[in-house]
Amino acid sequence: MSFQNPVFIPGPTNIPEALRKACDMPTIDHRSPLFGQILHPAREAVRKVLKSTSAEIFIFPSTGTGGWETAITNCLSAGDTILAGRNGVFSHRWIDMCQRHGLDVQIVETPWGEGLPADRFEEILTADKEHQIKAVLATHNETATGVKSDIAAVRRALDAAGHPAMLFVDGVSSIGSMDFRFDDWGVDVAVTGSQKGFMLSAGLAIVGFSAKAMEATKTASLPRTFFDVHDMAKGYDNNAYPYTPAVGLMNGLNEACKMLLNEGLENVFARHTRIATGVRRAVDAWGLKLCAVSPDVYSDTVSAIRTPEGFNATDIVTHAADAYGVAFGVGLGEVAGKVFRIGHLGSLTDVMTLSGIATAEMCMVDLGLDIKLGSGVAAAQEYYRAAPSLAHKDAA
Amino acid sequence: MSFQNPVFIPGPTNIPEALRKACDMPTIDHRSPLFGQILHPAREAVRKVLKSTSAEIFIFPSTGTGGWETAITNCLSAGDTILAGRNGVFSHRWIDMCQRHGLDVQIVETPWGEGLPADRFEEILTADKEHQIKAVLATHNETATGVKSDIAAVRRALDAAGHPAMLFVDGVSSIGSMDFRFDDWGVDVAVTGSQKGFMLSAGLAIVGFSAKAMEATKTASLPRTFFDVHDMAKGYDNNAYPYTPAVGLMNGLNEACKMLLNEGLENVFARHTRIATGVRRAVDAWGLKLCAVSPDVYSDTVSAIRTPEGFNATDIVTHAADAYGVAFGVGLGEVAGKVFRIGHLGSLTDVMTLSGIATAEMCMVDLGLDIKLGSGVAAAQEYYRAAPSLAHKDAA
Amino acid sequence: MSFQNPVFIPGPTNIPEALRKACDMPTIDHRSPLFGQILHPAREAVRKVLKSTSAEIFIFPSTGTGGWETAITNCLSAGDTILAGRNGVFSHRWIDMCQRHGLDVQIVETPWGEGLPADRFEEILTADKEHQIKAVLATHNETATGVKSDIAAVRRALDAAGHPAMLFVDGVSSIGSMDFRFDDWGVDVAVTGSQKGFMLSAGLAIVGFSAKAMEATKTASLPRTFFDVHDMAKGYDNNAYPYTPAVGLMNGLNEACKMLLNEGLENVFARHTRIATGVRRAVDAWGLKLCAVSPDVYSDTVSAIRTPEGFNATDIVTHAADAYGVAFGVGLGEVAGKVFRIGHLGSLTDVMTLSGIATAEMCMVDLGLDIKLGSGVAAAQEYYRAAPSLAHKDAA
Amino acid sequence: MSFQNPVFIPGPTNIPEALRKACDMPTIDHRSPLFGQILHPAREAVRKVLKSTSAEIFIFPSTGTGGWETAITNCLSAGDTILAGRNGVFSHRWIDMCQRHGLDVQIVETPWGEGLPADRFEEILTADKEHQIKAVLATHNETATGVKSDIAAVRRALDAAGHPAMLFVDGVSSIGSMDFRFDDWGVDVAVTGSQKGFMLSAGLAIVGFSAKAMEATKTASLPRTFFDVHDMAKGYDNNAYPYTPAVGLMNGLNEACKMLLNEGLENVFARHTRIATGVRRAVDAWGLKLCAVSPDVYSDTVSAIRTPEGFNATDIVTHAADAYGVAFGVGLGEVAGKVFRIGHLGSLTDVMTLSGIATAEMCMVDLGLDIKLGSGVAAAQEYYRAAPSLAHKDAA
Repeated sequence: MSFQNPVFIPGPTNIPEALRKACDMPTIDHRSPLFGQILHPAREAVRKVLKSTSAEIFIFPSTGTGGWETAITNCLSAGDTILAGRNGVFSHRWIDMCQRHGLDVQIVETPWGEGLPADRFEEILTADKEHQIKAVLATHNETATGVKSDIAAVRRALDAAGHPAMLFVDGVSSIGSMDFRFDDWGVDVAVTGSQKGFMLSAGLAIVGFSAKAMEATKTASLPRTFFDVHDMAKGYDNNAYPYTPAVGLMNGLNEACKMLLNEGLENVFARHTRIATGVRRAVDAWGLKLCAVSPDVYSDTVSAIRTPEGFNATDIVTHAADAYGVAFGVGLGEVAGKVFRIGHLGSLTDVMTLSGIATAEMCMVDLGLDIKLGSGVAAAQEYYRAAPSLAHKDAA
Repeated sequence: MSFQNPVFIPGPTNIPEALRKACDMPTIDHRSPLFGQILHPAREAVRKVLKSTSAEIFIFPSTGTGGWETAITNCLSAGDTILAGRNGVFSHRWIDMCQRHGLDVQIVETPWGEGLPADRFEEILTADKEHQIKAVLATHNETATGVKSDIAAVRRALDAAGHPAMLFVDGVSSIGSMDFRFDDWGVDVAVTGSQKGFMLSAGLAIVGFSAKAMEATKTASLPRTFFDVHDMAKGYDNNAYPYTPAVGLMNGLNEACKMLLNEGLENVFARHTRIATGVRRAVDAWGLKLCAVSPDVYSDTVSAIRTPEGFNATDIVTHAADAYGVAFGVGLGEVAGKVFRIGHLGSLTDVMTLSGIATAEMCMVDLGLDIKLGSGVAAAQEYYRAAPSLAHKDAA
Repeated sequence: MSFQNPVFIPGPTNIPEALRKACDMPTIDHRSPLFGQILHPAREAVRKVLKSTSAEIFIFPSTGTGGWETAITNCLSAGDTILAGRNGVFSHRWIDMCQRHGLDVQIVETPWGEGLPADRFEEILTADKEHQIKAVLATHNETATGVKSDIAAVRRALDAAGHPAMLFVDGVSSIGSMDFRFDDWGVDVAVTGSQKGFMLSAGLAIVGFSAKAMEATKTASLPRTFFDVHDMAKGYDNNAYPYTPAVGLMNGLNEACKMLLNEGLENVFARHTRIATGVRRAVDAWGLKLCAVSPDVYSDTVSAIRTPEGFNATDIVTHAADAYGVAFGVGLGEVAGKVFRIGHLGSLTDVMTLSGIATAEMCMVDLGLDIKLGSGVAAAQEYYRAAPSLAHKDAA
Repeated sequence: MSFQNPVFIPGPTNIPEALRKACDMPTIDHRSPLFGQILHPAREAVRKVLKSTSAEIFIFPSTGTGGWETAITNCLSAGDTILAGRNGVFSHRWIDMCQRHGLDVQIVETPWGEGLPADRFEEILTADKEHQIKAVLATHNETATGVKSDIAAVRRALDAAGHPAMLFVDGVSSIGSMDFRFDDWGVDVAVTGSQKGFMLSAGLAIVGFSAKAMEATKTASLPRTFFDVHDMAKGYDNNAYPYTPAVGLMNGLNEACKMLLNEGLENVFARHTRIATGVRRAVDAWGLKLCAVSPDVYSDTVSAIRTPEGFNATDIVTHAADAYGVAFGVGLGEVAGKVFRIGHLGSLTDVMTLSGIATAEMCMVDLGLDIKLGSGVAAAQEYYRAAPSLAHKDAA
């Protein structure tokens, strides 16, 4: 097994040395005050990363998918109506989960590559005079298409409609990497995981609940135990968990938050924009297009790159792994075979990114695409060198 | 944070050096063949540890509690009747989970300290002519009381009654440490976690399903997505997961199984019996009693030790942590304050165990109990030296 | 390979978790300012551990033996006379090194088990009217016999004789564990290594030079390059080394010093005295004697324990390794077969120490010595519990 | 401290994950058989890496410089004459060491950038009828200039002259990366360190002695103790060292040799040639020249690249560290300011190398050199993609 090259999948990300060490912890008693010294600061720090002052933070030994389940089983009851846009595989999966839990999902189909249509949401919400809709689901960053949606606009849609539905946001591939504002956007449940912006291994579902969402848990009747936030809250009050916590990973989360907050969230976001822009310059130099239809929806954590008609984009991913030992992401769902994805979130430098761009170039040339070697690299270099980052000094 | 002393909680256990290193892994692409080289051998090896040739093994980024939820949500429907014995906190919690998922639990209350009453199960099952009971739940080893139950006898009860109910067994604190026979005992769902016999951090729910249990999943209608075994099975067919797996921990699981299987399961079990016997000799020398009422139910992974009337057993645990930096387990539920627990599972040597016994002695004397210093240690030494183990050579 | 039990050799010691992680470092450029951020603080901190305000600190990729060579080759010339006491294997080896480098060593033979005879030194120095003696060599703590010598008394001997000889002190198994006062004692060269009080792996020779010793280097003509302190000093001025430094180990050294200084040197020494006293109580309870002849020379870092006539003490060490996976130290040189050694320096707790004592007891009983199981443990427990240490909270 | 980017210094190299873990070892008893299981296989494996069947291998806790000292102090006496070529800083330093140890060095000054002049050696050796010359010193790969010398030719010179002088070779930056033939070339002492081809941290001097060199040690009278090969050999006979070995680093060395031998030495060398060729293509594309004057002396482990007159090449190194967090090597000695160096030895992939080339390009453009961004990268890509390496699968 070789670990020499960075990975360029859109999560899990490359784990910084300091976080590897924070996670690799001997066993401690998870019912001792020592655990409290990890648990409480981690929750407090996650709250800050969410830009919230009051969200209740719950951390489960699970993944983002478990976070979705936490959101719906704690706040909703069988038969409840919810509103959701579908513009990629991950929004699709959350919708599917809702349906399997007996929820009635009103789906707004949205072209893959576009952001969620806040205006359409507003129409629907306005029309829902009896407030049948209990929650609006929104995927902040569609990892499958490299598209970010405007959550503030979704909030405005709710407000304009005077609608009391809760707002549930999937921030799995945005939180900790792209601007996310729990309080300002009136988010009721935010869902993420440990393996993206937090730069850790997968293994934690990280969820924030607003006071309104907490209130909803009192009447929500979907069955839940593992993901029950009341059990969890009761545990926290005793420095503990209702079951055994993933202590090392939580210690890593605590350290990851410190790294992000010490760097400054705005600096973290700017760093992601910067790295992403270099990738986009390369794509442009190659004469290719992103799946994301316009700059306002370009994701700063992952780029899904369309390849020419008739070419199987998945071949790039397979070839990169086989020939160069580099991992990119394949296209999923509707865009399978049509795009390949370069993940550029978490702990990445210009230098690492250039190696990913260089590899993609070699692969495309190897597979017969009309790409000039060095062209994407040069475009990214030109961008990066104009404003050399000091990120390597900050993000250990 | 100090990590110098071993822990004596009944899980998570002390993590062997080799497993710490196996878990501490850089990021790999979890959709690549490389992941398959971890996933499939790990599942195959877990099957062997369960002593099964055909169980379907599912591994979730979760904990034993998630394993319980996997068992019931995949195999049962709301309103189903199940039969369960309650003889400690963990059997209680599983029952509670069932009730919260809308199952009708027929509870056989059993004194804490006794094993599950297979004869009583037989009566009830025999009386259930219409086979309303869909599943029998049995906790193999009650971690709260240090009591093991006779699962083979539960199987015989089902057979004697000619009852088709499934047999779900919680083997969280027995599998990998005490004899467990999935096939011989006709277990339908076995549940465990990574942090006990497998000597890893918490973070994995490990579950085995029989063919009969797999068949039951087809009609079971409790809502499930994160813990859905069909989604999981479909992922496995593609070397993957329906979401992001905890790769490092799975790599550790694979290594842990290799360690156990290389040592030989019977040797592993004998080693646990040996370590446990030393602890029991010490308890005897102290003039104290176990919570477990008779030798046939003594657990080889944890001893719950009763302290004299009027003494708060929890003080021992608090004092051990404060004064000596050693972690023991407190009493839980009905036996809170009445027992303290010494966990003796996983990677332990005579030498480590003697240090735990010596610490317990100091604590009891410090707190005014009439215990002779060195007495428990001497009794354990006498036992251990009679047959010096070579465990330190085998279990790295 | 199993690493479950602590080691009880008199160095290398058990490495605290935090220091393992500090040493396990990716490659950095050792000619960059980053290296300076390790080098300079490490040297400054070592100076403090030596209780010096002005010693020049040199750190070589080597061991204590290389430190001895540094002392003599930088400060002396072939044919120079030096004065040294021989009371154990390590003082013997340093003397042997001097002779092989062409120095004329005036040896004061001292019974093994006794400290260096400062009074005899004073006589010899007083008699050396022409100041032929260029240096006095003194081993602060004889690791072979568990004997500490009174270095302050050696200094007083020099002063009483009005003799200008330099004072070279081997503090390999004392510095960082027992009180050592470079400035107060007028030490000219102090020698130690990374693997004892500093709790790291072997690999660094750590040496302190007084202004007088630095002056002596100007005329000293023994050949040297690898151990040349001028080359080293010139390197330090450029944040660098004359060759490639052991960066990770130096990072560990820096952290180790922080741990010691944060705990407080007097607390560190008191902790060692405390742990050692428990061991000595056990020896007493066993009815055995130390090699060290009287309490004023008892070492707080290692106890050499005499076994009865006709018994081969080395068997204890062999048996402990074979039967229990525990490492003690054998007797060396004159006391080979007559003593076995329990190292009790570095990062040890009461609980770990008790496990070592318990193991020694089992071994002695296994080998037919008339020792009561639990007796030494009880004596140590009695001592330790009288004043429970909080060391486990401080020394991570 | 950030460790995200690979280093491109000519050693220490990037440490593979597996070797980091092999070195990071808990303390074991270095006088136990367990240590023998590390020591003897490591020595045997190093012998194979040297392509020798009979060389005596000695491993010191030191560095390559200590290896040089081992060679001369064990085989020579004060006043002995030796022959050495000087064509860079490292050959210069070894010569300087010899002079400081009182040897009479006959120096063949050689232009920096050229290899050692075997023909000139032959003339001198032939003229030395009385065989005053006891040893010929040859630096296989001058790390300062990126020049390899033809050691086989030096051997032929000795043979042609019928001269019995020993042949000492500095293989610090060649062994384990470039073809080195201890037996075929009739090498008498070969010197290397842990931090180059062996891909470990600095901390070990690794030395091979021929039977003839071992014979010479019997009469050689330069003072030595730390580096005495007889003391070392005596220790090895007892599974031990004359002092405390660097156990973890030796465990790493053992693993490193396994990696190299499993890959196959010829494959390792071919991999280095391949990576180096890519770098040289980039240099060519930039319109720059190597310090090495002709292809027959191009080093496969490091390239020293000449920058235009009037430009300070060191600025590239400083800027790369400051602006991009990447470490290159500065020019040393005569070529300080005239060259910068890209180290390309040890565990490197195409992808990592391209990132180094891309960084060098950005730096040169940032500093005003007339270099086309992407040009060097494209040239290297073109070369690498023509024959995609599978190195990433082999060299973990």
